[in-house]
Formats: sequence, C-alpha cells, structure tokens
Amino acid sequence: MRWSEGFIPTLKEEPAEAEIISHKLMIRAGLIRKLTAGAYSYLPLGFRVLNKIESIIREEMDAKGAQEVLLPALQPSELWKESGRYEDLGEDMVKFIDRHKKEMVMGPTHEEVITGLVHGEVKSYRQLPLILYQIQTKFRDEMRPRFGVIRSREFIMKDAYSFDRDAKGLEASYKKMYDAYCRIFSRCGLSYIIVEADPGVMGGDVSHEFMVLSKSGEDLLAHCKKCGYAASLDKAQCVEKSELEEKELKSLKEVDTPDITTIDKVSKLLNVRPDKMVKTLIYEADGNPIAILVRGDHDINEAKLKRVLNVSHIKLAEPEMIEVVTKAPVGFAGPCGLKGIEMIVDSSLKGLKNFVTGANKRDKHLINVNFDRDFKAEKFADIRYITEDDRCPKCKGDIKIEHAIEVGHVFKLGIKYSQTLSATFLDEDGKEKPFIMGCYGIGVNRIAAALIEQSHDADGIIWHPAIAPYEVVILPLNTEHKPSVDAAEKIYNELTSAGIETILDDRNERAGVKFKDADLIGFPVQVVIGEKRLANGEVEVKDRKTKQVKVVKVTEAAYAVKGLLDVLRK
Amino acid sequence: MRWSEGFIPTLKEEPAEAEIISHKLMIRAGLIRKLTAGAYSYLPLGFRVLNKIESIIREEMDAKGAQEVLLPALQPSELWKESGRYEDLGEDMVKFIDRHKKEMVMGPTHEEVITGLVHGEVKSYRQLPLILYQIQTKFRDEMRPRFGVIRSREFIMKDAYSFDRDAKGLEASYKKMYDAYCRIFSRCGLSYIIVEADPGVMGGDVSHEFMVLSKSGEDLLAHCKKCGYAASLDKAQCVEKSELEEKELKSLKEVDTPDITTIDKVSKLLNVRPDKMVKTLIYEADGNPIAILVRGDHDINEAKLKRVLNVSHIKLAEPEMIEVVTKAPVGFAGPCGLKGIEMIVDSSLKGLKNFVTGANKRDKHLINVNFDRDFKAEKFADIRYITEDDRCPKCKGDIKIEHAIEVGHVFKLGIKYSQTLSATFLDEDGKEKPFIMGCYGIGVNRIAAALIEQSHDADGIIWHPAIAPYEVVILPLNTEHKPSVDAAEKIYNELTSAGIETILDDRNERAGVKFKDADLIGFPVQVVIGEKRLANGEVEVKDRKTKQVKVVKVTEAAYAVKGLLDVLRK
Repeated sequence: MRWSEGFIPTLKEEPAEAEIISHKLMIRAGLIRKLTAGAYSYLPLGFRVLNKIESIIREEMDAKGAQEVLLPALQPSELWKESGRYEDLGEDMVKFIDRHKKEMVMGPTHEEVITGLVHGEVKSYRQLPLILYQIQTKFRDEMRPRFGVIRSREFIMKDAYSFDRDAKGLEASYKKMYDAYCRIFSRCGLSYIIVEADPGVMGGDVSHEFMVLSKSGEDLLAHCKKCGYAASLDKAQCVEKSELEEKELKSLKEVDTPDITTIDKVSKLLNVRPDKMVKTLIYEADGNPIAILVRGDHDINEAKLKRVLNVSHIKLAEPEMIEVVTKAPVGFAGPCGLKGIEMIVDSSLKGLKNFVTGANKRDKHLINVNFDRDFKAEKFADIRYITEDDRCPKCKGDIKIEHAIEVGHVFKLGIKYSQTLSATFLDEDGKEKPFIMGCYGIGVNRIAAALIEQSHDADGIIWHPAIAPYEVVILPLNTEHKPSVDAAEKIYNELTSAGIETILDDRNERAGVKFKDADLIGFPVQVVIGEKRLANGEVEVKDRKTKQVKVVKVTEAAYAVKGLLDVLRK
Repeated sequence: MRWSEGFIPTLKEEPAEAEIISHKLMIRAGLIRKLTAGAYSYLPLGFRVLNKIESIIREEMDAKGAQEVLLPALQPSELWKESGRYEDLGEDMVKFIDRHKKEMVMGPTHEEVITGLVHGEVKSYRQLPLILYQIQTKFRDEMRPRFGVIRSREFIMKDAYSFDRDAKGLEASYKKMYDAYCRIFSRCGLSYIIVEADPGVMGGDVSHEFMVLSKSGEDLLAHCKKCGYAASLDKAQCVEKSELEEKELKSLKEVDTPDITTIDKVSKLLNVRPDKMVKTLIYEADGNPIAILVRGDHDINEAKLKRVLNVSHIKLAEPEMIEVVTKAPVGFAGPCGLKGIEMIVDSSLKGLKNFVTGANKRDKHLINVNFDRDFKAEKFADIRYITEDDRCPKCKGDIKIEHAIEVGHVFKLGIKYSQTLSATFLDEDGKEKPFIMGCYGIGVNRIAAALIEQSHDADGIIWHPAIAPYEVVILPLNTEHKPSVDAAEKIYNELTSAGIETILDDRNERAGVKFKDADLIGFPVQVVIGEKRLANGEVEVKDRKTKQVKVVKVTEAAYAVKGLLDVLRK
C-alpha cells in the first residue's frame, strides 16, 4: 500500500469528543470516525485491524470444530416475549414496528434465534454435540454510549452457542471455547485475566469473563496476586474474619437523630465507626418487600442478592413500600420490630455486637443492637461487594480491585433457554430432553480498543503485529531524493513479496510529519531511509515500541525487518 | 470436514413457503432457514458460499485500488432528510425512535454517510481519486419480501463509492468498477448481461445493471441477440417505424360508448385495433396535472416520463383531479379540447392518422381524430415501454424481453449527493467544487440464488467450484466396510492436504441417501467408493453436472479430482 493512495486521515489535535486514550488514538490515527452517538465508521486502517481480529477468531473457532453461521439481526419481538427476556432487556433493545404493524427487534444477542433454529433441525442425540458461531453486528440502544467503540450502540460480536446432551458434554464444549478464547486473546497480543463472573441477564450457573486491565475499564474485578484468584466484583466471594472486638452485650437504647438518615451523618453524630453500624435496606424482589442488612461500610451486591433470593427482578423499594413496611419515613429502617417480611443478613454481620441501626421511627436510631436479644436473624448470606480490606477467599492473600475491559464472556447456560423455548431432542434412552447449552461471546471492536489501552505511549498506538493495520512502514524522508525513493521501493517490493504487510509513506511531506504519523498509527516496525545514512548504503530498522534502532545495509533491510517481526510476533 | 460432525439439515420434501427453484433448493440443501418474513439464517454450508463470494469481491475490489471500510447501519434520520431521500424511500426504510427520542434509520444504503465522511476528511484535489467500499448488512422494510434471499428485508451488500475531481476521473473510476464487476460475476460462475438502466432513486445520469437471466427474475430486460444491445425495461429506447398505413384524414365523429372505458372494450365495440387508438392518461407530476398520450397497445413508462418531465414524483392523478381536468368521468379522457394542461405525446404516435380517443364527455369517444386539425401536440417524447414488436434501437434486429435477476448495479451519480450535502473539495485552481461521485452495488446473497437459478437440475444445485460450499464430496457407500473407509480417508487426506475443500460423507446411511444429498447440495465433484469397484482397487470420480463418471485407481483418485476441478473451474 502506498500511503498517498490511502484514506488515512490522521489528526494532530486531540478530539474533544473522546474521553479515554484508546478512543482518542483511534480517532487521531484515522481508524474510526463517529457518525452518531455510539455508531462509528471504520476507515481503511481501522477496518484492517477488525478484519485481522476476525480472522484470528475464525481460525481458533474452526480449530475447535465450531461451525460458522450467520443469523439475522431482524427478529420478531414475540421470540423475546417467549423467552421472557423482552422485559429484561427493556429499553436496551432496538425495536420498531414494521410496515405490516408487527413489532421487530434488532438482535442484541442470539440465544433465542439459535435455540429455535437448532430445535427445528436437531432431533436426535446422534446429531450432538454441536457448536455454532457467527461474527455479526449487534444493536443495543445503550442509555449512555461512551468510550468510543467500547460501549457503542452498534458493534461486532463473535457469538457462539453449544448444544450438548448432558452436563459432561457441556463441560467439554465449555472447555473448548475457554481454550479457544485464551488462544484468541493471546494471539491478538492482549494481556488478560480470566475471572469468575455473574451470568447476569444471560442466565445460567457458571460463567467466566476475559478481562483486560485498564484504568478506563467500566468493569471492576477483584484479584489476588498471590494465588491468582480473580472474580468480577459481582461475583467475588467475601470470607469473613472470625476476630470480633467485643464480647459483652450492652443495653439497647433509642437515640435522637433528627433528619440524620445516612451512614456518614449518623456515624459523625454518634461518633461510631461505619463498621459498627448496620444498614437496613428494603428491597422489592419479584414484587415482594424484603429487608436486607449489611454493615455500614459495605455495599449490597444485587447480583449476589438475586442469586441468593433466586428471583428474576430486584430493586430498592419505592418510598411508599418502605414506609408501609417500616412504619417510618425513609432513612430510619432497622431490623428491630420488623414484621411479616423476610430478612437476609450479610454474613459479615455474623457475631457483630452492640451495633447501630435505624429505629423504624422518624428521627430515631438504636444503639447497642444485638442479634437474638433484639431481633431474630435466620438467614445469613454473602450479599455484599468485596473490598480491598477483604482477604482472598482462596488463599487469604491481599485482594486488589481494579478496573478492566471485558473482551470475552463464556457461560454455561444449562437448560435456561432450551427449557423455556421447549427445545428438546430425543436421547438414547428414547426420552425427550432439553439441550444443555453454553454461549460464548467476544467483543470484536473492543479487542482493538483494549489493546490500545494496554499498548500505547505518548506518541501513539503500539500494535502487536498480529492485528496491526500494516506490520511495517517504510519512511523515505525525502521523496525528492531519488536514491531514497529507489531504496524505499526496493525494500517495499522485497517485504511485500515475502508476504509482509507493508505501507510505503510516499507522501511528499516533511520528515517530522512522517515520523509523527508512523508513531501515532503505531506500525510495529519502521524502516527509516535518510539521505545521510543512505550515502553509506544504510537504512534504519526501528522498533516502534522500544524505539531501538538497528542500522543495516539496504540489501539487508528486509532480512532485519523479518527478524524483528519474528521477535515482536511472540 | 466430516459430514457426521456438520450441521447440514437437508430436506426431502419441497418447502411449502418457497416459490422459486433457488429458494426451494437453498432450503432443501440446508443452506438457509427462514426466521421471519424476509430474514434468513445462513447455516454452515450457506455461510461458506457467502464467504467465498465475499472473498472474490474483496480480491477484485482491492485489485482496483478500492479500500474497504465499514460504515454503521445505525444512521440519524436527519441525514436522510438533508439529502431529500427520507421521503423517496418512505416506508421502505426501517426507522425507530431511540431511547433519547431521536429518530434513527437502519441504513438501506450509504450514499449519505459516505458523502459526509469523505467531506469531513478530504479537503484537496490531491487526495483524489478515492474509491471506498464495504461489505455490510442493509435493511429494507420491503412491502412484500419474497423469493427467499432475492428480495429480503435484511441482506448483505457490497457497496462502493467513488470520489473524483471531474467527469474524466469519474469515467475512469466507473470503468474500474465496471471491469471489476465483470470479473466478479464471471469468477462466481454466473452468466450475465449488462444493461443500460434507469438510475431510479439513486439518481445520477448513467447506470448499468448486471443481470442474470432467469424466469424467476423480478426485473425485465430488453435485448437484441443480433448486436448485443441490452437495456432494462425502464430504460430501453423505442425507435418508431416510419411506415404509416393511412394518408387521408377522415371526418372527426363523436360516438356513443356507454360505460365503455377500457381500450379492450372500446376496441371491441368500435371494431378498431388498439394500435389505432390513443390512451390519454392524466398524471400528477410534482403536484401538477399533465396529460400523457400513448397508443392503445402501449404502456406508459413512468421512469422515462420522470426523466422527460424532470420531476421528482409522478403518479396517476386521483379521480377528482381527472374530473376537473377533463370535465368528464374517469375513462373518457381525450386530447381534444383539453385546456390549461401540458401534454406529452409518445413518439410512436407521430404521423398516426384517424385514431380513436376519449371525448372528455361521459359515455362518448371520438373517432378519426387527427393531430393539428383536432388538437395541437407540441411535445413528443419516448415515454412508453419497449415491446417485442419493436426493433433494436441500435441495429433494427429483433428485440427479446426476458426476466432477470439484478445482481449488480453501477451508477454515475455526478454531483447529486455532493451538491445537496455541500460536500466540496478545493481544486487545483483554488475553487471549491463538489465531488463527482459514482456508486456501485452488488447483492451478495443474490449471487448465490442467481447461480442456483441458472445452474441446477432435477436433482439439485450444481455449484461452480469457486463458490461451492465444498469442491468435492467423498462418498464411501458402506461405512461398515473397512477397505471403503480406508480408501475414503486416504483420498480425503490427499485432497485436503492439496488445499482442495473436501467433505467426507462418513454417515452410516444408505447409499441412496448419500447420493441424493450429494446431488441436492451440488458439490461439483463426487468421489464414489463402492465395494465392487474397490475390489479392483478402483473408485469413481463423477462430475455432478454431466454425471459423467471416470473410473480410476484409488491411488490416482486425487489426481483425477484435481484434473476435473481444473476443467470445471474454467
């Protein structure tokens, strides 16, 4: 490729619209342009990156025996009503009424469609196992599209679905996909962490997320550097310490807390540490009120709570419900005297003594509250978020909480969809059984952005050769100097013939402009052709990342480039 | 690929939903399944065909220096209002209101987006010419989706856009794309006709369609087998014969035609041939009434009429308007006495004498009407559809009208979009000029269907090797006969190692089932391994199309397959 013929609009200035580094660099390097909120055009260099990521994904999926299909984006909304996810996804789904007055959905994911498809064609256990995948554009009407292609309304997803006879089969399919994901992300040059995760709206029991650590990541994960334990914040298990400070029960006392409704304020007024206070929150779980108790310095983890309660929908109750349940205004709820309502207590409260709670009365709190004496707690469970004060649930090591970008997610769905959609096959024993399913997603566009988050410097992007738009850029610094042009053409032809993707910066621009653009876009290897060195028959082969330069003869340049690429490809 | 591991659900029965042969075969061969009206899932074999077509398109586009991009499907509807096509496309566009109450469009095509994109980045003539393309999913809310993937609501299009400084540049870009299209369709194994076409809603002056003749085609084209002239019916030029039967003008006479309002009925009642009658139709052109005269046996060509009138919208006038203009009920319009209304007369009427027209009075027609004496006709133009009675406009040869499927369309847009959307660049002379644009589309899914329409027999599809799901199928007829299995495995390994895409039918099925499926799916070459021949160390290499069989030694099978493929690939 000759740069002068390319459509590579680089920008000197930082785009005002971009918040995070990958977004800024993707725009500045001429990879993408925004059309409208959450919808980006991929320019030629950006498209090349996407295309390479897709090829790697295809190779690894095919290697595991997964078969590629292509499912429609257009889906009848009935299908989503049937699976029960029409409500779950709600406003996140792009919906429209077609000209025949039928409501359609632009697919945000394809569990419903693939389950229906396989159900229609696979009748016998003999046709199993089956793994189908597609690389396809998804649509989600995000509340707040942001971070460029990381959270957009239109994005490319590799979604795979496995169908098995039994749990053992699912285990094998899951492992295949898990292994393929490891290879895909490694080949793309990403350094990633695999975390235990909450399946969320996808359902199922077990899931793992493939996370790329990045300060700009929207997700949080907890991990232990000692033993390698890692989990999403929704999932990370809290183990409680057994040491307790107090032994004696003090007398229960009601205290005045006029208009003081937050932990912070109560803590200050009563001079009690938040970890000696207990928050009582009234939730609505599938329509019913429920009281939740956590320590004042802890946060409720709704994903855990949903699992513990085994309900589909939970939310903080509306003030009306809270007032009916506690017989007090919002802000003064407590466990003592609560009647006719289930109560779940976070495990960290087990054994805590003499704590502060609301009094279920306007402007009143209770101090020296104790279990059993003052109220009965029957159900303890891990329903809070882990903190950096917690210990690793595996090895008791230090827990670190970090931001990350989710690039892949694998789920053991089990029978969630096959049961709801009555998708069964005839097993060897002559019985109809629901398919045991798994689903496996990769955010294709995100891989590009995540790599940039991980691999850049002040000058621009540093691509891994596997997904770089071109592996090598040749920079003849003076295109009016014929020997420079000749040397550039010679090396360009040699590299291109050797199958190395090379771009020749043949623009009649100043050397400074060429260097800046080459660094900004981040081709892994640069071949710099200056008049001075060329007088000695020499050029520079430069590693974009380390900026280390090797001076070589023109005749040896292609060989040196290949050598450097071999190192960088690892 | 081993058949037993594949997801290849073939059907014995003809699917009730399918109207045309390609649709039936694509379903029966397990290439596609319908999800909902106009939206199909591509199963693994169908996806392989699509993927191969896309690869051929990419190679040929890249060879012409076109650069691949990827533009969003999600587009703000404002963009379409700005270009003026929001109304033109109307209900054909998929539109929705997003959660922020903004109206969005799912792109049915991308002229608006690409013009905006290039306008934002290309400032100087130095950055031209530029050809950008994408292979991307389009959405159109078709009134009546039909014929399987030929007219669907979701389809893959390769759309390219060229940007040039001047007409000469456009000419060069247009030629590049035209040539690339010829190569693409030839490589896919299609036999096609290139026709002059009407640009329609895309706008511009010149366009060519790439058509595949097929009885199931929705389009009609006129072509001359003598000189090769070919044009879409909307465009095909009519040249009028000069011989005229009558010379003398007879006296004008009003005759009774009670409730007789159609050409057919009037013809019977008055015993006059339709070609001696003149239809007068009142049209509404951009809101104004206009009278159109064509011969009784001809049909008005609205595409031609629009070009002649140079208006955006035309339609037959409503009865109210017709009654105001003609002062008579619908069915009795005629040219005599019409006042205050423009009149366009089809060229075929030039010199016609003593014809029949409506009288602009209820239940009355006029006979022996003549130009000049009875009414003034000032504007003659070619505004009718060509018929098989016409002569070729180029060589006067016979014209044949046939059904065809449009697989590609190239347009010289000129400044239609760049002017409306104010997309300009700075030319060498320092002046702002609008880009001179072209656009170029290929229906990717349609290529598969069109090939099947052209290439099938009673047993199924006959693929060209270039886009076959697999080039070769190996059929060990008895999978419990070890020597058959061993021979099959040996040939399979040899072919696969040689890079030939091969599927091994390792299913434990009857020979009849295997033959039927192989013929139905239509792999170009079959290797049949039967016990009898194998006893002599022989297998059969069979051409799916001709059904010709060559008996070869097992050791020579791979070589024979390669030889046959070389022939078929041509």
